[in-house]
Amino acid sequence: MSSTDLRFASRDQHRSWLASQARLPGGFRVGSSVFGFTPFELDKPAKMKLTIIACDRPTADFAAVFTRNAFPGAPVLVGKRRIEEPTLGAIVINNKISNVCAPDGVQASERVCAAAAGLLNLDPGQILPCSTGVIGWRLPVDAMVAHLPAALATLQSASVLPAAEGICTTDLFPKVRRAELFGGSIVGIAKGAGMIEPNLATMLVYLLTDLQVPRNRMRPLLRTTADDTFNRMSIDSDTSTSDTVALVSSGQVPCPEINAFHAALTQVCADLTEDIVRNGEGVHHVIRVKVNGAPNRHIAERIGKAIVNSPLFQCAVCGNDPNVGRLVMAVGKEIGAGSTKLDSSRLRLSLGGLEIFSGGAFRLDRDKETALVRHLRDAELYQSVVPADGVTFKPPVDYPPHERCVEVGVDLDLGNGQAVILGADRSHEYISENADYRS
Amino acid sequence: MSSTDLRFASRDQHRSWLASQARLPGGFRVGSSVFGFTPFELDKPAKMKLTIIACDRPTADFAAVFTRNAFPGAPVLVGKRRIEEPTLGAIVINNKISNVCAPDGVQASERVCAAAAGLLNLDPGQILPCSTGVIGWRLPVDAMVAHLPAALATLQSASVLPAAEGICTTDLFPKVRRAELFGGSIVGIAKGAGMIEPNLATMLVYLLTDLQVPRNRMRPLLRTTADDTFNRMSIDSDTSTSDTVALVSSGQVPCPEINAFHAALTQVCADLTEDIVRNGEGVHHVIRVKVNGAPNRHIAERIGKAIVNSPLFQCAVCGNDPNVGRLVMAVGKEIGAGSTKLDSSRLRLSLGGLEIFSGGAFRLDRDKETALVRHLRDAELYQSVVPADGVTFKPPVDYPPHERCVEVGVDLDLGNGQAVILGADRSHEYISENADYRS
Repeated sequence: MSSTDLRFASRDQHRSWLASQARLPGGFRVGSSVFGFTPFELDKPAKMKLTIIACDRPTADFAAVFTRNAFPGAPVLVGKRRIEEPTLGAIVINNKISNVCAPDGVQASERVCAAAAGLLNLDPGQILPCSTGVIGWRLPVDAMVAHLPAALATLQSASVLPAAEGICTTDLFPKVRRAELFGGSIVGIAKGAGMIEPNLATMLVYLLTDLQVPRNRMRPLLRTTADDTFNRMSIDSDTSTSDTVALVSSGQVPCPEINAFHAALTQVCADLTEDIVRNGEGVHHVIRVKVNGAPNRHIAERIGKAIVNSPLFQCAVCGNDPNVGRLVMAVGKEIGAGSTKLDSSRLRLSLGGLEIFSGGAFRLDRDKETALVRHLRDAELYQSVVPADGVTFKPPVDYPPHERCVEVGVDLDLGNGQAVILGADRSHEYISENADYRS
Repeated sequence: MSSTDLRFASRDQHRSWLASQARLPGGFRVGSSVFGFTPFELDKPAKMKLTIIACDRPTADFAAVFTRNAFPGAPVLVGKRRIEEPTLGAIVINNKISNVCAPDGVQASERVCAAAAGLLNLDPGQILPCSTGVIGWRLPVDAMVAHLPAALATLQSASVLPAAEGICTTDLFPKVRRAELFGGSIVGIAKGAGMIEPNLATMLVYLLTDLQVPRNRMRPLLRTTADDTFNRMSIDSDTSTSDTVALVSSGQVPCPEINAFHAALTQVCADLTEDIVRNGEGVHHVIRVKVNGAPNRHIAERIGKAIVNSPLFQCAVCGNDPNVGRLVMAVGKEIGAGSTKLDSSRLRLSLGGLEIFSGGAFRLDRDKETALVRHLRDAELYQSVVPADGVTFKPPVDYPPHERCVEVGVDLDLGNGQAVILGADRSHEYISENADYRS
């Protein structure tokens, strides 16, 4: 899926590579700034980052797709209205509080938009709001509005990196990917670390381009691209209430061929997808499942998701334990729960390229077990270190050391349906991150 | 769901209560014995327990339900044939190796049955085999056959406890429940700790009764009871390849009323269900979700399962963190993925009996947050202790200190569908147990 096979030996090496990816296309300015406030729901102070993506002039050529969660956040409700507006002028993003199911959430979101619009000489309807963070809490609108001028003062047109960093929450590192074509570029940034599943889980993605792609071409294209990339990953099967993927064009560079643009956009999104999984909360291993021979694409996706979402398989991978029985269990669980008829004598499974199941039985021996363990170890991003307080595990790296995956192959030999699904293992760091996230 | 509200202050207190529950109904003998062997797949030695449940005379009155996983173990394939036999004489159960998808698994299982039949003066078709443990490994048939006489020598008719202990794998404590009626009894034992979801995950349950219930009445009744109890729990959403629930009657005591028997059987199964969840791998909290007002029972079950299977909600509960946003996320994820239309202004959610969501928004304040934390703390079974090696967590108790649950209420106000689903939180102990289980 990835266009590159990158290795990084240090945080600094990774950050300088990010900086090289981050040059903004023409027509955009971005900025980000942090401020302190006291949430209505807590006694102790907290910090929030306000990030702005501003178009030099409002553009009609923008598109967005949103979470399918039945309880979308207020910014998603507002965003769905913005899609109908003739032009977009800026995106205002906050972290810390997601403004989901909070009292008067839509009004709060609109108040932030109105204040930003006033400062940017825009109409409130030209501002797309996005929020991520704790569900249920109220947005600190007054504090946000008071801080907006400071955030706007950071706007610059050189690099998207401040925005890539500004939208992060528990992300270990910012995520930036780019493609260049026809003298223009597409630059994408993403935030997303947990609550990641099918339908654009807690994931914010902003794709900026100077290539001129008209709104009516851009919109179906973004939906297809999201289905082929972001909707094929799962870290914890949980679907966030805030997910948003937005694509904005400044239209400064002619785009002679829409298919080439689609391919480049898909590559940027595929790379960001892999970045998001690799930076998933507590991820020690990225798992890539290639399902072939399914009756259709939908069943192929479901089987791939069943594997990457199986807690027992996730734990086995975390421990570098090639417990392939759990792989068969996960496939059998999904098939047994559905209506697909399986001929297990035609099923073939592989791990790390080695055949482990065929003809209705496992094909294992001690040499193969040794090779499977080696494959898992090679794909490991880091090992847990003994925590300082004895119970709270923290990842010992804040950059991705490599782009290798645990490679799982499933061939049902029943049809032409196929899918590639990305997921991750389950570790002590995930538990530590999520068992005590708010307090 | 539980018939009792038990508290135990120590392992000894719990064990003596179990002994009081364990008196065998007339017509059965049980025994269990352990032996050492070297698996084909490993260099180091391992231990296996062989457990026997024998009928004094073969009975036509037996029933069983099996896993719906599409890759059932060889014993399940054999068991499905046994169901068609005129009578059952004994059940032979081993732990350590599940005999799933291993080469020649059915033949291996049949060889164990034939050997047991020879020693018990039965026909091989009168033996129900059950296996639980590692998937993919081969059953050590020769070693098992050699040890069968020793296992049979332990048969006795006083207590089911040796069998309840013999079938355990990673279970922290044996599980025994009983009901008495019409001068007879139903005694149930269960094994099951991980890989527990809808369709009878790694769960073995044996229900023995001296009450005379004919085979043709017993079979639909067991299926209904399993759907109402065992199929409404989920620890990790994973469906095992070996699950079996068997009900056997010795027919020594007349049963004048089948409905009373059904009610008693349901109570025994409901109690065992709760025991299984409470003893789930790494469980700190049992979560009970009551869903009401769903369009139908099926949707109610799916919403309940979505909540107890949400990794983020599970982690929040583990940390005694009333992160109710994740509860709303899980409900919204399930509804958003399906076709149910939700009016979020009619949805009501409660935690620990306190209303947390109504009229489309959260109903929270600091006092309520404090009360929610207290509810979670009260339902906690134990806290993690700093592990000796720094990374491998082990539960500090091997008995259930109490039977309290984290109580979640969901009312969709859309119809009459309802369901009660049992699940559990997600902890470091689960990761430790499953990331390094085989090696």
